[in-house]
Amino acid sequence: MKKVYLDNTATTRVLPEVRDAMLPFLGESFGNPSCLHEWGDIPRDAMETARGQVADLIGANPEEIIFTASGTESNNFAVKGLAMAQQKKGKHVVVSAIEHFSVLNSAKTLEKWGFEYSTVPVDKYGVVDPEDVRKAIRDDTVLVSIMHANGEVGTIEPIKEIAKVTKEKGVVFHTDAVGTTGNIPVDVTELGVDSLSLAGNMFYGPKGIAALWLKKGTRILPLLDGGIQEGGRRAGTENVAGVVGLGKAAEMARRLMPERSAKLVPLRDYLINEMPKKISHVLVTGHPQNRLPGHASFCIEFIEGESMLMLLNAKGVGVTSGSACTSRALQASHVLLAMGLPHEIAQGSLLFGLGIDNTKEDIDYVLEVLPPIVERLRQMSPLYSKFIKQNKGG
Amino acid sequence: MKKVYLDNTATTRVLPEVRDAMLPFLGESFGNPSCLHEWGDIPRDAMETARGQVADLIGANPEEIIFTASGTESNNFAVKGLAMAQQKKGKHVVVSAIEHFSVLNSAKTLEKWGFEYSTVPVDKYGVVDPEDVRKAIRDDTVLVSIMHANGEVGTIEPIKEIAKVTKEKGVVFHTDAVGTTGNIPVDVTELGVDSLSLAGNMFYGPKGIAALWLKKGTRILPLLDGGIQEGGRRAGTENVAGVVGLGKAAEMARRLMPERSAKLVPLRDYLINEMPKKISHVLVTGHPQNRLPGHASFCIEFIEGESMLMLLNAKGVGVTSGSACTSRALQASHVLLAMGLPHEIAQGSLLFGLGIDNTKEDIDYVLEVLPPIVERLRQMSPLYSKFIKQNKGG
Repeated sequence: MKKVYLDNTATTRVLPEVRDAMLPFLGESFGNPSCLHEWGDIPRDAMETARGQVADLIGANPEEIIFTASGTESNNFAVKGLAMAQQKKGKHVVVSAIEHFSVLNSAKTLEKWGFEYSTVPVDKYGVVDPEDVRKAIRDDTVLVSIMHANGEVGTIEPIKEIAKVTKEKGVVFHTDAVGTTGNIPVDVTELGVDSLSLAGNMFYGPKGIAALWLKKGTRILPLLDGGIQEGGRRAGTENVAGVVGLGKAAEMARRLMPERSAKLVPLRDYLINEMPKKISHVLVTGHPQNRLPGHASFCIEFIEGESMLMLLNAKGVGVTSGSACTSRALQASHVLLAMGLPHEIAQGSLLFGLGIDNTKEDIDYVLEVLPPIVERLRQMSPLYSKFIKQNKGG
Repeated sequence: MKKVYLDNTATTRVLPEVRDAMLPFLGESFGNPSCLHEWGDIPRDAMETARGQVADLIGANPEEIIFTASGTESNNFAVKGLAMAQQKKGKHVVVSAIEHFSVLNSAKTLEKWGFEYSTVPVDKYGVVDPEDVRKAIRDDTVLVSIMHANGEVGTIEPIKEIAKVTKEKGVVFHTDAVGTTGNIPVDVTELGVDSLSLAGNMFYGPKGIAALWLKKGTRILPLLDGGIQEGGRRAGTENVAGVVGLGKAAEMARRLMPERSAKLVPLRDYLINEMPKKISHVLVTGHPQNRLPGHASFCIEFIEGESMLMLLNAKGVGVTSGSACTSRALQASHVLLAMGLPHEIAQGSLLFGLGIDNTKEDIDYVLEVLPPIVERLRQMSPLYSKFIKQNKGG
């Protein structure tokens, strides 16, 4: 059976070049980079090379990169650490309604620690209005955290414009750029943010390694106390192989981004354009143009997303209904609800994360196998029967 | 030149079997284990196999294992998370004076959050007296954290006896078993603890992966908020390759522990016994018998440890003067000071972490190259000149 992986927002594969770069550090170059003897030298140098590669990808200085173990850790570190470091100044943070749970739940934890947080809404495309951010900022606001792009609907947020507001107001601005970094150009100076999360497995690097970029001079409290690794900001023996893999993936992403995008964007647009022709009552979610290169997301009415996933899986197609981090929680997406979609439509969410291996044939295969699946599921749907009856009646 | 790696307390090498077990997850089995489609199946199954392997190593149930990214993260998670989960009951924790900084500094962070902590002393061998733990426990004590073995001096603590005290007092007991797990038998039931940290790179697994064992029913607050991975207790996309490597290393450690120890213990004892014969004014640090199998630590008087490291490194020998996590901080060890050693002796600390690759020839090489290094350094030492003068004068 044909196998079509279309879940690159959950994770990309690890490129062979990335794996090969990692192998020495799972072999002869096993040393601890903190060591003062020669076994520490190669791992330490390799980490610094990787730090430079990651910095280059986002137009940053190497010493501003702090390696972490996941985008989630980076976001926890930023939201909690930046807020806690400024708690004498104020105890209020601002987030958007469609942040990843690593940001939203960190804000909730801050609430338990005596902070307050405000949630900025989004429009029907999932876009944050910078003026809403301005309104949400109070005298005691110390942090704004708005994602660069949403992984569930692909919408890219106007970070540059939001940064103008936060700068004017003198508030630290963190952006979760896990979805964008390595996939679209990300330049921290151009964006104007103070802090930025990225994760290797979003751009063909390994899982279990990520980074937080922190603008020089930005104060943060560590999440992980202990040794003096990462300039004392993130303790723990370093995942050297992972760091090296992240660096290699960053170097390749920077170099290959134009050709990857040139391939992905037409495929994405083809899928977005063809889907409504093949299936009735389909809604494209997220912004029609301003979205991640390989990202196509839909709500298919009168159906539950999970059922579609299962039947697509049986046809060899791997997709998701929402964030991988909560896919097993089987709840309606907070992102789609925040965009104003009713619960019964949000539950029919289907998200295609196209990757560099995908071809037009893959998309055609999906467009061939999905319609009968939808038809079959709709025939079992009481909501759909009711809708048909009403329309006939009308 | 001969190369002798004797810094296995900083990190062990990754066994080829471990690396080979990881490779598929850096290749074709790249999927995100949270995914509901088939790309998630193999990684998810592999993680559960690894969870079982880690559980087996410490006599635990698989569902009690939470994967983390480092021993440091496990300790931060345990100390902060266990204390915070019980803060309504009380805000006092007890640690020993010789804990790793991931525990000590977590206790200091708790202090900033309104907790208090007490420090239990150690004797000249670095041993905690369970009666001192009893004395330190107050009505509002919610957590005791005492390490299983100290990485700097090798001493194994009487955890079983301390657990009797904590049970009697109804206080949760965490042990940092990063130094012991995989190296000596560790059985959570026998130890009687509620929580235990372990790290893969201490027993020939990869860096960047570790675990926290948490006894069923023990309440903890997450350190990393976000998705529902690890039963909602530790969010973030899983480091599948790392987890699989940790599992394989655990399985091998369990199987090979007797033969590894049978090799290491005589080598360790040989080094400990011969060193004072070759060099004057040498002190064995830590407990003479009750210590980690491959662990030999000394203080060499009238010399700074770092200088010895550098000169040993020039002879191809990799050793350390203390914890890798702080080796670049160049401060006298809090462990040695807590054991009552004066600062000028503590600074001459030298720590040999023997591993499964070491031979008697390696030890003989060290015993051959170290004495002239010590002699050379002592000739440059004002303290030593003074000592010699005084002794002559006396």
